Amino acid sequence: MRNLKVKIAYNGSAYHGFQLQDNGNSIQGEVQKALRRLLFERIGIFGCSRTDTNVHAREFYFNFHTDNAIPCDGFIVGLNTLLPSDIVVLGCEEVDENFHARFDAKAKTYEYLIHNARFKDPFLNNLAFHYPYKLDADEMTEHIQAFVGEHDFRAFCKAETLAHLKTTVREIFSGKVTRDGDFVRIELTGSGFLHNMVRIIVGTLIYAQQGKYSFEDLRAVVSNKKRSNAGITAPAHGLYLKEVIY
Amino acid sequence: MRNLKVKIAYNGSAYHGFQLQDNGNSIQGEVQKALRRLLFERIGIFGCSRTDTNVHAREFYFNFHTDNAIPCDGFIVGLNTLLPSDIVVLGCEEVDENFHARFDAKAKTYEYLIHNARFKDPFLNNLAFHYPYKLDADEMTEHIQAFVGEHDFRAFCKAETLAHLKTTVREIFSGKVTRDGDFVRIELTGSGFLHNMVRIIVGTLIYAQQGKYSFEDLRAVVSNKKRSNAGITAPAHGLYLKEVIY
Repeated sequence: MRNLKVKIAYNGSAYHGFQLQDNGNSIQGEVQKALRRLLFERIGIFGCSRTDTNVHAREFYFNFHTDNAIPCDGFIVGLNTLLPSDIVVLGCEEVDENFHARFDAKAKTYEYLIHNARFKDPFLNNLAFHYPYKLDADEMTEHIQAFVGEHDFRAFCKAETLAHLKTTVREIFSGKVTRDGDFVRIELTGSGFLHNMVRIIVGTLIYAQQGKYSFEDLRAVVSNKKRSNAGITAPAHGLYLKEVIY
Repeated sequence: MRNLKVKIAYNGSAYHGFQLQDNGNSIQGEVQKALRRLLFERIGIFGCSRTDTNVHAREFYFNFHTDNAIPCDGFIVGLNTLLPSDIVVLGCEEVDENFHARFDAKAKTYEYLIHNARFKDPFLNNLAFHYPYKLDADEMTEHIQAFVGEHDFRAFCKAETLAHLKTTVREIFSGKVTRDGDFVRIELTGSGFLHNMVRIIVGTLIYAQQGKYSFEDLRAVVSNKKRSNAGITAPAHGLYLKEVIY
C-alpha cells in the first residue's frame, strides 16, 4: 500500500482547528471530504499536529495510505481543485510505509504574529494580533531565552488538558523575536508543545514588556509551575505553525 | 457648522461597495450607523469615490458636517471603537466649510494586486487576484503607457453605466507595474476613472501578456472605443483605492 506525505497550508479563521470535530468544521474534515471525491475511497489522514480554532498553518503535513495509483503531481492539482480556497496543497511525495506525520516529526516551529501599530489594519483581521503598545523585539529575544531548554512547562498548559498528559516536560530548542516594520514575529522551535503553550508564552512575554516580569521573574514562572503566575493566553488568530522538521 | 474630513481604510470583502445600498451592507451604511451612535445625530457623509462590491481601500476620504464639538483625536478613537474591524479610521481634520471629498479630489491612485505564483496563498483570499501564469512586469509597464494621457475610455467602461455619462473622456497621469516576489502591482493615477475602468485595463494587460495584444493593438483598443475589443474585467477583490490627492 502506498503511503503519501502531503504538505498543505491553511487559513484557520473559518475552522475549529485541524482535528475532526463532531460539531463544527475542521481542516481534517475538509481534506477527507475532498480525498473521498478525488480517490473514491473513505480515507483517514494522520496530521502532524492538532491546531486550535483560528490557528493557521504556513506548513502542515499529513500522511495517508491508499492503493490508488494517482501520480503526486496530479494529486496536488486534483485536491486543490476540490478543497476550499483557505486550504492549499503545496506538495506530495511517496514515503516509507512506516512514516507517520505526527510521530516522525523531530521539531516544529511556531510563529506568533503581532501587528504592533496604533491603528488596526483591516487587511489583517484574523491574521495577526493587533497590539498598539511598545514592544522591544531585542529585549523580547533576551526574555524568550528564559524558556529555551528542557523544562517542565506545566505553567504554560491549558488546565483542562493537564489531566490527560503523562508529562509536561518539553524541550524548546530556540526562540527569537524579530521586528519588520509594524510586525513583530515571535518564533519558537521545539520537539513538541503543550496545549496553548506558545500562546501563554507570548502572553507572558507581553506582560514582561508591560513591566510585570523581569528575566528572573520569567525563569521563576517556569520553575514554580503555576499557571496563575504566567501571563494571559494570547489570541489564537496570531498563531501559525510555520515549519515541521522530519 | 464644522466640516470634518475623515481618512479611513477598509477591507471590502464583506461589503457591497462604499455607497449606501437599499439591500445589502455598505461601508457608508456602517460608518453612518457608527456616527449616529457616537454623535447622537443622523449624519450623511460624502465619500471621495464609489467603490464596487469587494473592492478595498488603503486610503479613502469622506467629509460630513456637524455642530458637535468633539475633538478630532477623540473622534478617531470613538469611531474606531464603534466600527466593525474591517473598517478603520486613520485620521480626521477640520476643513473649510466648502470642502467636498469627491469634488475636490484632484487625482486618485488605484492599485491592482496580483498574486503571481503556482499555488494559491490561503492568507490572500479576497485580498489579491491569484494568477499562476507568467507576467513580465517590465513589459507590462511599457504596455500600460498605451493608456496614459487623455483618452476616450469608452471601451473600458461597464456597459450599463455608459448611458448615464456626459463624457467618457478621462486623463490618466501615470501608470506602472512592479514586481515584489510573487506580487505584481499595477498602479494607475488619474483625475477620474469610469466604472470598472481599472479592472478592464488590468484584464486587457493580462491578455497582452498572453500574447493577444501588442502595444499597437492596445493603442487601437483605446481608439476604436469598443468594449468587445478590450480584455475581461479583472476580479474586484484585487483592486485597492490606494491614494487620493487633494
